[in-house]
Amino acid sequence: MSLIIVGSLALDTIVAPAGSVTDVPGGSTSYCSIAASYFSNPSIVGVVGEDFPESVITLFKDHRVDLTGLSIESGKTFRWGGRYADNFDDRTTLFTDLNVFESFNPTLPETYKDAGYVLLANIHPGLQHHVLDQMNSKPFVVLDTMNLWINTALDDLIALFKRVDMLVINDEEARMLTDERNFAKAARKLQAMGPKWIVIKKGQHGALLFHESQVFSAPGLVLDEVIDPTGAGDTFVGALIGYLAQSKDHSFDNMKLAVIFGSVLASFCVENFSVDGITYLEESDLDDRYDAFVLMSQF
Amino acid sequence: MSLIIVGSLALDTIVAPAGSVTDVPGGSTSYCSIAASYFSNPSIVGVVGEDFPESVITLFKDHRVDLTGLSIESGKTFRWGGRYADNFDDRTTLFTDLNVFESFNPTLPETYKDAGYVLLANIHPGLQHHVLDQMNSKPFVVLDTMNLWINTALDDLIALFKRVDMLVINDEEARMLTDERNFAKAARKLQAMGPKWIVIKKGQHGALLFHESQVFSAPGLVLDEVIDPTGAGDTFVGALIGYLAQSKDHSFDNMKLAVIFGSVLASFCVENFSVDGITYLEESDLDDRYDAFVLMSQF
Repeated sequence: MSLIIVGSLALDTIVAPAGSVTDVPGGSTSYCSIAASYFSNPSIVGVVGEDFPESVITLFKDHRVDLTGLSIESGKTFRWGGRYADNFDDRTTLFTDLNVFESFNPTLPETYKDAGYVLLANIHPGLQHHVLDQMNSKPFVVLDTMNLWINTALDDLIALFKRVDMLVINDEEARMLTDERNFAKAARKLQAMGPKWIVIKKGQHGALLFHESQVFSAPGLVLDEVIDPTGAGDTFVGALIGYLAQSKDHSFDNMKLAVIFGSVLASFCVENFSVDGITYLEESDLDDRYDAFVLMSQF
Repeated sequence: MSLIIVGSLALDTIVAPAGSVTDVPGGSTSYCSIAASYFSNPSIVGVVGEDFPESVITLFKDHRVDLTGLSIESGKTFRWGGRYADNFDDRTTLFTDLNVFESFNPTLPETYKDAGYVLLANIHPGLQHHVLDQMNSKPFVVLDTMNLWINTALDDLIALFKRVDMLVINDEEARMLTDERNFAKAARKLQAMGPKWIVIKKGQHGALLFHESQVFSAPGLVLDEVIDPTGAGDTFVGALIGYLAQSKDHSFDNMKLAVIFGSVLASFCVENFSVDGITYLEESDLDDRYDAFVLMSQF
């Protein structure tokens, strides 16, 4: 077990300019684990209801995702619905039915407890603490979160910062946490709160990686068409830690590559609904997209 | 005369979080010409009043700016005042006193008319047409503009697009002109309007260069401190065309470097008030800053 991913599993309804889909695979763990699977064999912890489609289980297995930590409980799977405005200016949540996810209490199988890498995907910080409490090893921990927890569980989150190696957040969340719009200052404040590695995601503008006094700017791929941005951030962090868990190299140069491969997978993610953009990719697809990142940013 | 720059010359009053300054060098031509001077000897066309400080004339001369096309008229110099909000969220115009600039009608000295490069810095599109009408040569023309002319002189501007080689605008202006938030689509629409080269400036997120089907993404330097963003866009385009006029190489690879040197100079610009960040730089300053761009974007 080299990589553990703990987060949500859901069935999403998405309404976007290009169309709409109902009860498609969603939740942070779906995106994170499929993205990570191109580099590592991730093991997930999560809960779904009895209505969770067998086809999605098959999809995970096809991507060599270890499902030992998946529990199927009586009741319905977590459902989320969102609508994107034209031009993706805005996203409105249509509904959030937690269902079996409401009482999710992540319990790690024994085989998970010695993992070298842990991705705390977006769930309540209290549950993220609980995951770390169960580890025997001292893994490299990557933390994802969201504005909801900054607003409602800030103390838990701040305490968590001292227990993780890398924090991955978006520009708006960085500003909420630090009251700084300047990325350099925001990153320094976040580093002082605990994580040695800070990644600030900037959507179509790419991402910034900070470590000690070093900075790396990954470009956002200039895409002709965005179909569905749902899960792009989860996909980014999943691929990032998947690459890291495979290479086991924490040098700044290798972390740059992890950020680039996160960006590569995220660029596929937004090109289709749900996880459709990141399933069953060939190695040549990844190579071609990596080359596109090289071409657009090297001088 | 290899490079002609036509734009405004002003004395600015700037109120920013770090302090305020009064009657300091401003206007697009001041920034453009000083930035270009690190690569070429730019020749400017512009008008100032009798109150224009001799010290600024000296500053231009120190930077090898050819002032043959500068006319000093009776009356006062164009004055502009602006105030930046905390965090640079917003800029409010305090006053705009056009003074002698109100009747500016750029007339090119004979020695300018065979230039190989022309920068139409930010002035009314009608005046920009008038500049091109006077050229004997068929120069490489770079066009800068602003939201004011998109709102008030759109027909003139659209007609101008067919006469220029490169359009340099910011992300908001690109959206105003194309109704597209997607950069790839916006750039394609702009290319269809005339300019073969499109540069979209994204502030602290860097800049995008488009030519045919090629794209280059220049990073924004992550700066600890921004003092005054006034003129950063002018500085960017000035350095860009200055580099181009020196190298005379219109390959995509060389254009990438022109965009990077534009970004290098712009990063110096914002570190101090007015043009203070870009005056009297040493070659080693430019080299060090270029290296910082390499370090933060190459993987």
